[in-house]
Amino acid sequence: MFGKRRKAIITGFILLISFLMMGNALADEVTTQEVLFTVNNIWMLVATALVFLMHLGFATVESGLTRAKNTVNILFKNFIIVAIGLLTYALLGFNLMYPGEAWILGKWFGFGGFGLSAPLGAAGLLDYAGGKYTYWTDFIFQGMFAATAATIVSGAVAERIKLHSFLLFSLIFVGLVYPFVGSWKWGGGWLNDLGFYDFAGSTLVHSVGGWGALAGVIILGPRLGKYVKGTIKAIPGHSMPLATIGVFLLWLGWFGFNGGSVLSADPQAVSYVFTTTTLGAAAGMIGAIFMSEIIQKKPDLSMVLNGSLAGLVGITAGADVISIVATILIGLIAGILVVLSVFFFDSKLKLDDPVGALSVHLVCGIWGTLAVGIFSPAHSFWVQLLGVVSYAVVVFPIAFLIFSVVKKIMGLRVSEIEELQGLDISEHGMEAYDGFQIFSNQ
Amino acid sequence: MFGKRRKAIITGFILLISFLMMGNALADEVTTQEVLFTVNNIWMLVATALVFLMHLGFATVESGLTRAKNTVNILFKNFIIVAIGLLTYALLGFNLMYPGEAWILGKWFGFGGFGLSAPLGAAGLLDYAGGKYTYWTDFIFQGMFAATAATIVSGAVAERIKLHSFLLFSLIFVGLVYPFVGSWKWGGGWLNDLGFYDFAGSTLVHSVGGWGALAGVIILGPRLGKYVKGTIKAIPGHSMPLATIGVFLLWLGWFGFNGGSVLSADPQAVSYVFTTTTLGAAAGMIGAIFMSEIIQKKPDLSMVLNGSLAGLVGITAGADVISIVATILIGLIAGILVVLSVFFFDSKLKLDDPVGALSVHLVCGIWGTLAVGIFSPAHSFWVQLLGVVSYAVVVFPIAFLIFSVVKKIMGLRVSEIEELQGLDISEHGMEAYDGFQIFSNQ
Amino acid sequence: MFGKRRKAIITGFILLISFLMMGNALADEVTTQEVLFTVNNIWMLVATALVFLMHLGFATVESGLTRAKNTVNILFKNFIIVAIGLLTYALLGFNLMYPGEAWILGKWFGFGGFGLSAPLGAAGLLDYAGGKYTYWTDFIFQGMFAATAATIVSGAVAERIKLHSFLLFSLIFVGLVYPFVGSWKWGGGWLNDLGFYDFAGSTLVHSVGGWGALAGVIILGPRLGKYVKGTIKAIPGHSMPLATIGVFLLWLGWFGFNGGSVLSADPQAVSYVFTTTTLGAAAGMIGAIFMSEIIQKKPDLSMVLNGSLAGLVGITAGADVISIVATILIGLIAGILVVLSVFFFDSKLKLDDPVGALSVHLVCGIWGTLAVGIFSPAHSFWVQLLGVVSYAVVVFPIAFLIFSVVKKIMGLRVSEIEELQGLDISEHGMEAYDGFQIFSNQ
Repeated sequence: MFGKRRKAIITGFILLISFLMMGNALADEVTTQEVLFTVNNIWMLVATALVFLMHLGFATVESGLTRAKNTVNILFKNFIIVAIGLLTYALLGFNLMYPGEAWILGKWFGFGGFGLSAPLGAAGLLDYAGGKYTYWTDFIFQGMFAATAATIVSGAVAERIKLHSFLLFSLIFVGLVYPFVGSWKWGGGWLNDLGFYDFAGSTLVHSVGGWGALAGVIILGPRLGKYVKGTIKAIPGHSMPLATIGVFLLWLGWFGFNGGSVLSADPQAVSYVFTTTTLGAAAGMIGAIFMSEIIQKKPDLSMVLNGSLAGLVGITAGADVISIVATILIGLIAGILVVLSVFFFDSKLKLDDPVGALSVHLVCGIWGTLAVGIFSPAHSFWVQLLGVVSYAVVVFPIAFLIFSVVKKIMGLRVSEIEELQGLDISEHGMEAYDGFQIFSNQ
Repeated sequence: MFGKRRKAIITGFILLISFLMMGNALADEVTTQEVLFTVNNIWMLVATALVFLMHLGFATVESGLTRAKNTVNILFKNFIIVAIGLLTYALLGFNLMYPGEAWILGKWFGFGGFGLSAPLGAAGLLDYAGGKYTYWTDFIFQGMFAATAATIVSGAVAERIKLHSFLLFSLIFVGLVYPFVGSWKWGGGWLNDLGFYDFAGSTLVHSVGGWGALAGVIILGPRLGKYVKGTIKAIPGHSMPLATIGVFLLWLGWFGFNGGSVLSADPQAVSYVFTTTTLGAAAGMIGAIFMSEIIQKKPDLSMVLNGSLAGLVGITAGADVISIVATILIGLIAGILVVLSVFFFDSKLKLDDPVGALSVHLVCGIWGTLAVGIFSPAHSFWVQLLGVVSYAVVVFPIAFLIFSVVKKIMGLRVSEIEELQGLDISEHGMEAYDGFQIFSNQ
Repeated sequence: MFGKRRKAIITGFILLISFLMMGNALADEVTTQEVLFTVNNIWMLVATALVFLMHLGFATVESGLTRAKNTVNILFKNFIIVAIGLLTYALLGFNLMYPGEAWILGKWFGFGGFGLSAPLGAAGLLDYAGGKYTYWTDFIFQGMFAATAATIVSGAVAERIKLHSFLLFSLIFVGLVYPFVGSWKWGGGWLNDLGFYDFAGSTLVHSVGGWGALAGVIILGPRLGKYVKGTIKAIPGHSMPLATIGVFLLWLGWFGFNGGSVLSADPQAVSYVFTTTTLGAAAGMIGAIFMSEIIQKKPDLSMVLNGSLAGLVGITAGADVISIVATILIGLIAGILVVLSVFFFDSKLKLDDPVGALSVHLVCGIWGTLAVGIFSPAHSFWVQLLGVVSYAVVVFPIAFLIFSVVKKIMGLRVSEIEELQGLDISEHGMEAYDGFQIFSNQ
């Protein structure tokens, strides 16, 4: 009897040990956590590539909606901003925006030091960001975001700002202002502690860029010939194909902008965000078409393009928490708002914003942020409003100040002759469309 | 002795228990099935983004191959179709196409109800779609497909159809017709039961769009000046760069269109589909070049562009089951067919199809579907033929009927003056290329 | 007491057995290795799609930087090269470049036979490429690379080479030369054995293409009117938007080019490569701006565009092994080099390279390869130099020979009248911008 039992015990142990060894063998291989880490990380990198493409979207939509004679200048600004954004983010922006424990001024301001310094070695890999992505992914994804804020300004001040003055402004705005105020929420700062919600940046990216744009538009004044003797001249863009390409690419990039803001490849969350992002944009188009048909009698392509961007900006703050019906409502309202806003800024306020950046990014950025407080039961309207106001009262004055100082130092606006001639010749000594017959005043 | 054995037993149990606890710890974490689910799902979303980009591809290829004066109109149609497609698909298309158990008329027609209603909670996540992707991924991926069918019509009826008439047609075509006939195969309907095979939509998307295009072309008649006193006037496109950008983007999008139709990230299947998709397109180009050099003496870029699209449409029905050699053969024949077909429709049938949509999507859609019956031993030529004929006899008359009713209600074609002036001015009150000198009759 | 112990033992065994059964149940499902395989493979396919898009990047940047009258021709060449590249790679290139064991001439030359033949069956899937990706992924990813080498030549010989002569050259260059010399390193050949390092192809792709371009530029001579009576005429490109779109798309594609060259989705490696790729490009822009402002007084957009490409080519050889600081240094120097080099080739050597392909791909390809030997402690400068020289002394003479033979057989350059008229009309019988007023000499 004992013999049997002993045999049974021994057999059991052999089984157990072989099983444990099998376990060890598996442990030598890759764990599910490591594979999930790989999936999450690779999605974040694909999202990064998509956000990168948004810069081409901005470059083409802005140049398409302005005149041929300023095309090189706009392409140049939107291209160089990528370099400025990424390099300053590597130097200090990343550590300003995500100070970790290095808060200096309560949770208003923090700085983690200059340069990039990854936690080294494979051992620490799964410890960073909850094992979802690497330090480098974090940097490159967030760095791509940083540059977009300055790009938003670019469109509003187009066709009259001096190149080097814009570059200096951008350097400061994207290198210091964007990460500083971004830290309040995404860096875990005071607004985050209060429960302010901004999923992918209706406020942190779009209205921050929008406030900068507003400051620039006010200081610069309108383009020559825009408001003359009480009349308002429409200055049409020179290439609707370019503008359309731009909006499609921005929408595409938004899959990475919003989809990547899930900060993992979580199937439910990312697929839901894809759905709200798409339906928000689609509803924005419908809203803009109706308003455009009512006001302009004929459906204006540039309004419908801006309508989709309005829907995208509007849904960005709550893409992961807003219901489908509310998403469509938010998009519709954003599309209506953007058309009304374009006419309001132009004819009432006489603010000359060549591409409608204020209406798209500032107005709909605010709308989207407040909409989270309206449509998501988990979030407070008043905290959302507080967030919106906080960014307004800090970013607008700072941007105004920077523009003013830059103006003092090196001037802000090209001369009348240069503006008439176009910035391509005056600032870059080249034409965008060599050989083409283009009417001189355009 | 017992003491030792007892110790051994106890040690064994401690080991066992700690191992079981380790097992539990692992069970608290993520399972391989869940990680695989995450991979499959994220690939489907990346594929969705690629299919989305096809709409930019269509917008640019169609506007590039038509005249400058109709550019805004074409861009507008191809852009708004995304909103129409997605919103109707959310409202009812998705549940028409995939009725689940809710078949009403045998397996010919079914409807699962209005709106979107995801199975809630993480518990059900792995039960949906065999644990490969979420409900939202399913919706957004299929929704992107839906809009393409209507976009195909857009190119064929370009430069003469009234904007609002086209929008009404599209609304019905993409909202009702496409999902209704799509359910026959992809929704698990009667053609699926018969063994009909259409991997990614040579028939369900491309020839469905093609039949709609044919109805439109017949009802509308040719553009002014196209066929005058027995002569056939070639009306060249206004921008070959736009057309080329469009075809490249369509090809890129096809990696998502075909690659996503695997409905998982299965390594063997997706990589094989990438290979056949690419080689089909490449072979289509070669076929088109040879035919173009023979017929036109010089290699026509627009023919070679259409040749690659022909190869892509041709391989779409069987991208996962066709051998490499047969793939190249199918592509070559598609490339030859598309050139012959363009000349046949134009000079023999006098059907004015500005961008060659009939030749690319209808002719090669049929060819690709039949080719599965020819080259894949597992599929019957006669069932493939039955499928092709079924879609023809249902979609063409319905599309013809819709166009006729729309014509009755609000007219279908712009006036002669508007057509000469261009639809950009008449329908949208704006120009595509403000400031550029463009010859008036173009 | 025994009873209790027996019960305990029995309970233990039940637990053990049920756990083992659970283990078996899991074994029936998917393993972590298989899921990791799926992740790695799908990333490689996404990277493939990104590399595909580089061909659109080349098509647009090259046509944008040349004259309107040669646009169709350039688009045609850059489009057809994809078909030539992929089809020849399927026929023999893949097996020339990766001969496996089938070396014939030491490790200088090998050939694994014609056509594609995947190891069949799911059983072998994990055995291929260390279980990282499938045979088809391997083929399609590497095939997309192959075509880029010939595309690089296209830009340098633009605006004067006969279409069919270029196609014949490309067929041989991409079908035979590129895979032959590529096998030395990536196929595991003699340079690989020596420790030569070229992560993603600064030498194997870019300077191989560059040497081919140099041979073409020398044999063809400059465009008409370029160097007349000692004066050097600048011939500006006709569309800066096209050129800018092209560079953005190339940069985007580079995320796949470099990121895919990790040959897995390894989180640390891919994210680091994304970071160096981006910072290299950004630094290249800064370097080019400074040089452009110094030499040209005003920042030239085409120089800054080429500056980013220079940075990208420069970092390609060591994107996975170079430190962040060294990356920025390499990019800066590449950006400076490319501007100096453009002026040097043009004004000193009188080599007419319309798009700056020699400066970007050859000069910076060499620089990037040597930089690995300078900045990476693990690699030898002298071995890197040996690699650079080996490719020079083999590829340049072969390319020169092919061009010479093609010239003998069918001529290489279009007639003067055709060149003045533009290759769009003479080679393709069509215009790129029908209806637009374009100055005749452009």
